[in-house]
Amino acid sequence: MAGPIDYYFDFASPYGYFASHRIDEIAARYGRTVNWHPFLIGVAFKLTGQKPLVEQTSMRAEYFPHDWLRIGRRFGVPFTMPQGFPHAAVAPSRAFYWLLDRDPELAKRFAKRIYHAYFGEGREFTAPDMVADEAAALGVARDEVLAALNDQTVKDRLKAEVETAIDRKVFGSPTFYVDGEMFWGHDRLEEVEDWLKRGGW
Amino acid sequence: MAGPIDYYFDFASPYGYFASHRIDEIAARYGRTVNWHPFLIGVAFKLTGQKPLVEQTSMRAEYFPHDWLRIGRRFGVPFTMPQGFPHAAVAPSRAFYWLLDRDPELAKRFAKRIYHAYFGEGREFTAPDMVADEAAALGVARDEVLAALNDQTVKDRLKAEVETAIDRKVFGSPTFYVDGEMFWGHDRLEEVEDWLKRGGW
Repeated sequence: MAGPIDYYFDFASPYGYFASHRIDEIAARYGRTVNWHPFLIGVAFKLTGQKPLVEQTSMRAEYFPHDWLRIGRRFGVPFTMPQGFPHAAVAPSRAFYWLLDRDPELAKRFAKRIYHAYFGEGREFTAPDMVADEAAALGVARDEVLAALNDQTVKDRLKAEVETAIDRKVFGSPTFYVDGEMFWGHDRLEEVEDWLKRGGW
Repeated sequence: MAGPIDYYFDFASPYGYFASHRIDEIAARYGRTVNWHPFLIGVAFKLTGQKPLVEQTSMRAEYFPHDWLRIGRRFGVPFTMPQGFPHAAVAPSRAFYWLLDRDPELAKRFAKRIYHAYFGEGREFTAPDMVADEAAALGVARDEVLAALNDQTVKDRLKAEVETAIDRKVFGSPTFYVDGEMFWGHDRLEEVEDWLKRGGW
């Protein structure tokens, strides 16, 4: 049962960002690897009737930025609210899967760069140029990235990944699957670790 | 700024139940006391458009019982899903505030008994008899409890407490206020502790 952990996240999710700083290390402590799966949470929200955290009633919306600042501080992770948050993470997600098929480790490094640009520095990522720049910083040819973002095969690949997430009942970001058991939320990493320690129910 | 912590909870909230086992101890470690405030989360849900966790789309509803069992196991807190969950916590909440005005410590012990009966043993608490029995086990006269549950002053008292919670933007259970800063969720007790440790931003 010591298979890889599946880590589902939206690039526009603050809690997914915080988890990206911790999940690989937790998994490694128990001899596990992690498969990263960016997806588009908006598709799940349409099915569950949820709304983005900052678009909810003001009673809820005012709360979350406090939570993000506190969590960033506690875990020593830089946090800058991107102006116009949240953005649709289509471009970086497509680029991720295109990279994944070439070099899984490179794809993960790219994901970390994107998350850092977005939530560490507050730079938004909808423009293909920005996504290409981040990939180029890792040695990937800019024009190949730009071509991939418009490639129907790549588009379909992301679509299929989002559908798989929905089929697995992923309704929030981040979500983790460990041995078929689902965990939702950055705040459930302690539960993930407890599960890994016990080895099951 | 070392004032008491305000702990808002619904007696029908599993996460409120888990927090009831931990909040006083965390506060005491930093020289703080805790004021317990049962409220009715349904009133907040009407304002925020949220639904009870088990009445949401099946995609979400299936998840939560897993989470509760795992958390109970991790913290060594017995958890039994009450049949017909969730129940409206009007009767025990009224009894709590009636007791609070007589003896705050007794009210807290009563709250713990109610939570244990509901989530520890799975017994529902809408019947006045059950609420009176739990109070009687602490030495309170049954007939006085039963009378209090129908007392307009007591009814108004609970109503006012719920309104105060809403005014303070409490949209979920449990919610904690520490030095004017709001924390939502049993999973934010670590954040509460971090705040107490740092003494502010």
